[in-house]
Amino acid sequence: MSAYAVIGTGALGGYYGGLLARSGHDIHFLMRSDVEHVRIHGLRVDSKNGDFVVPSVHAYKRVEEMPKCDFIIVALKSTQNNLLKELLPHVMHDQSYAVVLQNGLHVEASTESIVGKGRVMGGCCFLCSNKVGPGHIRHLDYGTILLGPYRGMDGKSPAVPRTVVESVIRDFSAASITIEGTDSLQMARWKKLMWNIPFNGLSVVLNASTDQIMQTPASRRLAEATMREVREAAMACDESIPESHVEMLMDHTDKMVPYDSSMRLDYLAGRPMEIQAIFGNPLAAAKQAGFSAKIVQTIHDQLLFLQETRKATSYA
Amino acid sequence: MSAYAVIGTGALGGYYGGLLARSGHDIHFLMRSDVEHVRIHGLRVDSKNGDFVVPSVHAYKRVEEMPKCDFIIVALKSTQNNLLKELLPHVMHDQSYAVVLQNGLHVEASTESIVGKGRVMGGCCFLCSNKVGPGHIRHLDYGTILLGPYRGMDGKSPAVPRTVVESVIRDFSAASITIEGTDSLQMARWKKLMWNIPFNGLSVVLNASTDQIMQTPASRRLAEATMREVREAAMACDESIPESHVEMLMDHTDKMVPYDSSMRLDYLAGRPMEIQAIFGNPLAAAKQAGFSAKIVQTIHDQLLFLQETRKATSYA
Repeated sequence: MSAYAVIGTGALGGYYGGLLARSGHDIHFLMRSDVEHVRIHGLRVDSKNGDFVVPSVHAYKRVEEMPKCDFIIVALKSTQNNLLKELLPHVMHDQSYAVVLQNGLHVEASTESIVGKGRVMGGCCFLCSNKVGPGHIRHLDYGTILLGPYRGMDGKSPAVPRTVVESVIRDFSAASITIEGTDSLQMARWKKLMWNIPFNGLSVVLNASTDQIMQTPASRRLAEATMREVREAAMACDESIPESHVEMLMDHTDKMVPYDSSMRLDYLAGRPMEIQAIFGNPLAAAKQAGFSAKIVQTIHDQLLFLQETRKATSYA
Repeated sequence: MSAYAVIGTGALGGYYGGLLARSGHDIHFLMRSDVEHVRIHGLRVDSKNGDFVVPSVHAYKRVEEMPKCDFIIVALKSTQNNLLKELLPHVMHDQSYAVVLQNGLHVEASTESIVGKGRVMGGCCFLCSNKVGPGHIRHLDYGTILLGPYRGMDGKSPAVPRTVVESVIRDFSAASITIEGTDSLQMARWKKLMWNIPFNGLSVVLNASTDQIMQTPASRRLAEATMREVREAAMACDESIPESHVEMLMDHTDKMVPYDSSMRLDYLAGRPMEIQAIFGNPLAAAKQAGFSAKIVQTIHDQLLFLQETRKATSYA
């Protein structure tokens, strides 16, 4: 049986890791300050698919105490990727693979620089969950993962062998996680960005919920125009997404349960926002491909301003 | 001596009208609720160029009581232009000319539709003043007017005769108002929009003062990119503005006394913002000329959303 490490036991790592632990996998969690609480009370997941507690989990405060694992699930926010260089070597052996479950584009790059080319998978997660207390996750909706080999910034890194991807899919599936393999991780990432860029960005800049954005004509039009521009950027990067995908996403959003985007939650809670992963990296990729995404750049700059001035305020 | 009517005695109409009244012009003010106060206390202007009170002014609550005038100064906010059809006919005679002192592009169109083609001048005002109480204006800085014939939406209306423009310039100059004639009102309007669009718009969307926008790298870059796009829109509309004008404006803004844009003041006070005049009309003109101003459109849509949802809140 393969050993898994979960680096970052938040809303996402706690949810998927909790499911893997419940199904009896050999899994080890880095969870910092929650360790004491989890050692006593276990890891608790309240889910629309059924609540559960894993009474006894391998929880670690310090990465130095963790065993070397075959698969390393990177589940930190991408704003903490600067920590990976310090963390990952402790849980890696020569044949370890990484599974990067983060939002945005080329978020796998920092993991790849540590774990090595041809050893990184990326997972595009459609998950709606929050961490509501120490070792306590609330799963609200969705949860599907699209998993594929990460081929590097230049698309030229060797792919993780198909059998390896399949073994992860098998393990996750056995834990009741809906997961599919994809040979086109970048296309999955761009498709997700078509939603995340307009709705994460505008929810912060306009201080609005998704349904407010959808129900006000001006912001609805802007969200759709932004979505179209992200698609154009993806096309410039050779990811051929049909135009109908815009309509599909708008339609889907109309039917969504109103909820706050992760970026808005981060902003309201005073945490750093994933501006680089969700806006900066796609903008850089588009620019490299000769496409100037002006709406996305505008929202990016507005978010940076808001993050910058909020920081200034909280220091004051 | 020509008779002047001032339609709208706010920060702008009160300031310029006050100066004209002080210098002894035959001038008549529509001022609604301030009338009683002004009849007792006069019209008061606190100005960096010297405070003064005009003890006795012709102030009217109802436009029906006003005399027909040779020149009608339109000094309402452009958001109230729907009132002009009701107001102007009462103060017009067959030979009246209008002087539209409003912000934005083609703000003269509604006046022209009432007063007639070839009878409208537009004034581009560089004025920093507030109304601080009934009949009480505070002039903070600047005040220059660029005055020229308005040639209609299509640029084909006959021009107001040069001698008429010159007589207005003479009257205003005699009242110590710095005023210059221009044969290119549209270019003056676009040049002013190069400042107003980025700084009015971003000050509301980002809830920031001009100096905060200038001092934060992301918003400074965005303000400059917006300014460049407005220039491109102007160029598409055949107004040839040198690229150096961008640097000049940025430089000038760096040296400005920090102050709140009129749009931000309107927003914070719950008044309608001049979104149509400052954003909507320029966007329409650019589109007509085949230019898609994406940054300006983005900020426009954001402003509309903010105005829309604020209204919804205050009705709640």
